Amino acid sequence: MLILASTSRTRQDMLRAAGLSFTALPSCVDEAALKAGFSGPPAQLAQALARAKALAVAGAHPGALTLGADQLLVQDGRVFDKPTSLDEAARHLRVFSGCSHQLVTAACLYRGDELVWSGTEVATLHVRPLSESFIARYLAAEGEAVLASVGAYRLEGLGAQLFSRLEGDHFTILGLPLLPVLAALRAAGALAA
Amino acid sequence: MLILASTSRTRQDMLRAAGLSFTALPSCVDEAALKAGFSGPPAQLAQALARAKALAVAGAHPGALTLGADQLLVQDGRVFDKPTSLDEAARHLRVFSGCSHQLVTAACLYRGDELVWSGTEVATLHVRPLSESFIARYLAAEGEAVLASVGAYRLEGLGAQLFSRLEGDHFTILGLPLLPVLAALRAAGALAA
Repeated sequence: MLILASTSRTRQDMLRAAGLSFTALPSCVDEAALKAGFSGPPAQLAQALARAKALAVAGAHPGALTLGADQLLVQDGRVFDKPTSLDEAARHLRVFSGCSHQLVTAACLYRGDELVWSGTEVATLHVRPLSESFIARYLAAEGEAVLASVGAYRLEGLGAQLFSRLEGDHFTILGLPLLPVLAALRAAGALAA
Repeated sequence: MLILASTSRTRQDMLRAAGLSFTALPSCVDEAALKAGFSGPPAQLAQALARAKALAVAGAHPGALTLGADQLLVQDGRVFDKPTSLDEAARHLRVFSGCSHQLVTAACLYRGDELVWSGTEVATLHVRPLSESFIARYLAAEGEAVLASVGAYRLEGLGAQLFSRLEGDHFTILGLPLLPVLAALRAAGALAA
């Protein structure tokens, strides 16, 4: 039995499309407190958040494999949170404009309190120079849907117009390092090889 | 005005999701004959096919920008065509198993018979070792839908289970180098920057 310690629609869709059966359970983790108290590199923070989410659920389901995941957006050492308003989304897009940022995507598998596997993938996204008029039209067209994304973009929508180049696989960009997760599930005997 | 010289559903979906308005027109090109008579590297063949498709449509619409595209799957110098049966798909998957192959994705823009832009992107896909039982279950689950793909996989479905690693962006893998195409459309004044 596989548990996804997240109710993220994107992650559920990814796992379901890949043919996995699982139960999605919310995990109550004070992410803001964990972030505020953390001083290591972003990849360690993303992994710490993924593990905290998994552990918050795994203890109550010791017979299951529990998958935790987290994604951070990092530019020049600054970790961005999801924008909370379209104005904040516009400010973020101005910072991203003409620069590159990383999406740091971590995942882990627990069985009870035993860490079975963990992995972190990084994608680098190159944003073209964005005009003010483009940002305004983009946000007007996409609306509050952008607030669901840490980068204020959906690559599978108008967000494609933001980028000049992408490095890193699509699953990592969407928020789950799916291929390493599938490999870990095969290694754990939870998915037929 | 933008014309897509293709009725490929995937390419239409990609352009539409990215916010483009266009008309999709079929282009009658004898791809088999063009492939059979070609002796250059796969990237040149993909580009030749993209241009032939665009030119077959562009002449009749000299005021429009016409986008042509093609994608080839290449492993160890061998160019694979779409499988025509599930048996052939299984044979292809056995050849892909445990190896890497390239998806060579070409596009071009014509205005009448003038080439405005062309570009080719390559993605490298690493296929994990696939067991016979996996291939059988995979093809039974996916069915004839796999025949629509040159690689017999949809990465956004069960096809994700085939791979250990992907290099190259999702659009290139899906069959259109969307980000370079968008850049070319901006440069041509056909898309607001």
